[in-house]
Amino acid sequence: MSYQLFYWDGLQGRGEFVRLAFEDAGVPYVDVVRESEADGKGMPAMMKLLEGDGLPSGALPPFAPPFLKDGDLLLSHVANILFYLGPKLGLSPESEAERLAANGLQLTIADLVTEVHDTHHPIASELFYEDQKAEAKIRAADFIQNRMPKFLGYFERVLEMNASGAPYVFSERATYVDLSLFQIVEGLTYAFPSAMRRSEQAYPRLKALHSAVSERPNLKVYRASGRRIPFNEGGIFRHYPELDAGP
Amino acid sequence: MSYQLFYWDGLQGRGEFVRLAFEDAGVPYVDVVRESEADGKGMPAMMKLLEGDGLPSGALPPFAPPFLKDGDLLLSHVANILFYLGPKLGLSPESEAERLAANGLQLTIADLVTEVHDTHHPIASELFYEDQKAEAKIRAADFIQNRMPKFLGYFERVLEMNASGAPYVFSERATYVDLSLFQIVEGLTYAFPSAMRRSEQAYPRLKALHSAVSERPNLKVYRASGRRIPFNEGGIFRHYPELDAGP
Repeated sequence: MSYQLFYWDGLQGRGEFVRLAFEDAGVPYVDVVRESEADGKGMPAMMKLLEGDGLPSGALPPFAPPFLKDGDLLLSHVANILFYLGPKLGLSPESEAERLAANGLQLTIADLVTEVHDTHHPIASELFYEDQKAEAKIRAADFIQNRMPKFLGYFERVLEMNASGAPYVFSERATYVDLSLFQIVEGLTYAFPSAMRRSEQAYPRLKALHSAVSERPNLKVYRASGRRIPFNEGGIFRHYPELDAGP
Repeated sequence: MSYQLFYWDGLQGRGEFVRLAFEDAGVPYVDVVRESEADGKGMPAMMKLLEGDGLPSGALPPFAPPFLKDGDLLLSHVANILFYLGPKLGLSPESEAERLAANGLQLTIADLVTEVHDTHHPIASELFYEDQKAEAKIRAADFIQNRMPKFLGYFERVLEMNASGAPYVFSERATYVDLSLFQIVEGLTYAFPSAMRRSEQAYPRLKALHSAVSERPNLKVYRASGRRIPFNEGGIFRHYPELDAGP
């Protein structure tokens, strides 16, 4: 039975970090919500599991998408899913020490993703962007001035520590962390093109990682396919020009 | 050599979730920043590692505290640290499926902790609370009305699924997730006493978990000791009466 990924349709969002791993590995998966309700999939299949209905024996309901079903195993949160899938997809580093380091990096990426989300929703997820636009402007300016350089500078420093010359975090082997960093650069460039252009010089290693991952054959096919949903203003990375102005 | 925990002194913060696990297990650890600089510990020891100076061979610098050093292993993020320590401290569930479920729950707890932090810092971590008080009031009201019930209701539902009658998540065995949920109830009760009093009836299982963990002998000793830093307005859970008013 195939891996089943459950995530909202119509946006890349947090699910995209998992999709990139499956696609790069060339391992089949079902993107359940994007499949037909007539086949027992689609949104109702996800809502059922979120409500605790039809869970595999012993499994707990997830708090929120994305979550993964692999036979009787149900697990949630991007970092947890990738920690589990990484070795099966050939996208984890080899040693336990490096796997724990990869998990730590992925959790730092998760924190960055939350901060990106909060640039357009600093007050309440439930409210529209338009209802928190003034606060979003202040938060986005702080993000561009302080937080984004802190995170990107950190990842740059981590990449510099790879003495192998490869454009990845762990020696010569591409891992799910590299795919996620690619997605971070993609997303930030979509959301904050001016801010990213101004800071481009500061992150040569991240730029090299982004180019290297772009060229990975399976991902080229994926990104040219209909499976890759374009960035849009329903996702985490949203382009609102007024938030890209900077401080 | 003892486990070395690195976290800010003077506040419980995210480090407390790791301290509770060590203390409950009765396993010695060094709370490095709270030890003497003259012995090579204290704040300079933490800053050195954060700057990538003196890292064990092959280790990556952490993005932020808390982080743990166990011999040559360095790992960061609460959930990652507890996932690693859990089996060694006898505080993980038995099966792989349950360990992944525990990790998912701990990551949901991490998201809740971030949202609690953002009730008093919705605009910028770098700014004082006083400089974002108006926004904090709106965000805290939304937290009390929407987010807190969503998270606590979810944990209550998870606890209800334990058919063993024990007040923990996984059958009769207390795990680090239970200790963290205890800390969540403690912290929310400190930060939002009125809101928690109003909603008390809704979460009988969480209340029972909180009582059961309170009675664990090693934690009673810990909480009566000077090692347990009292809640204060430097931490994640802060009591500002104006944020506890609710919507």
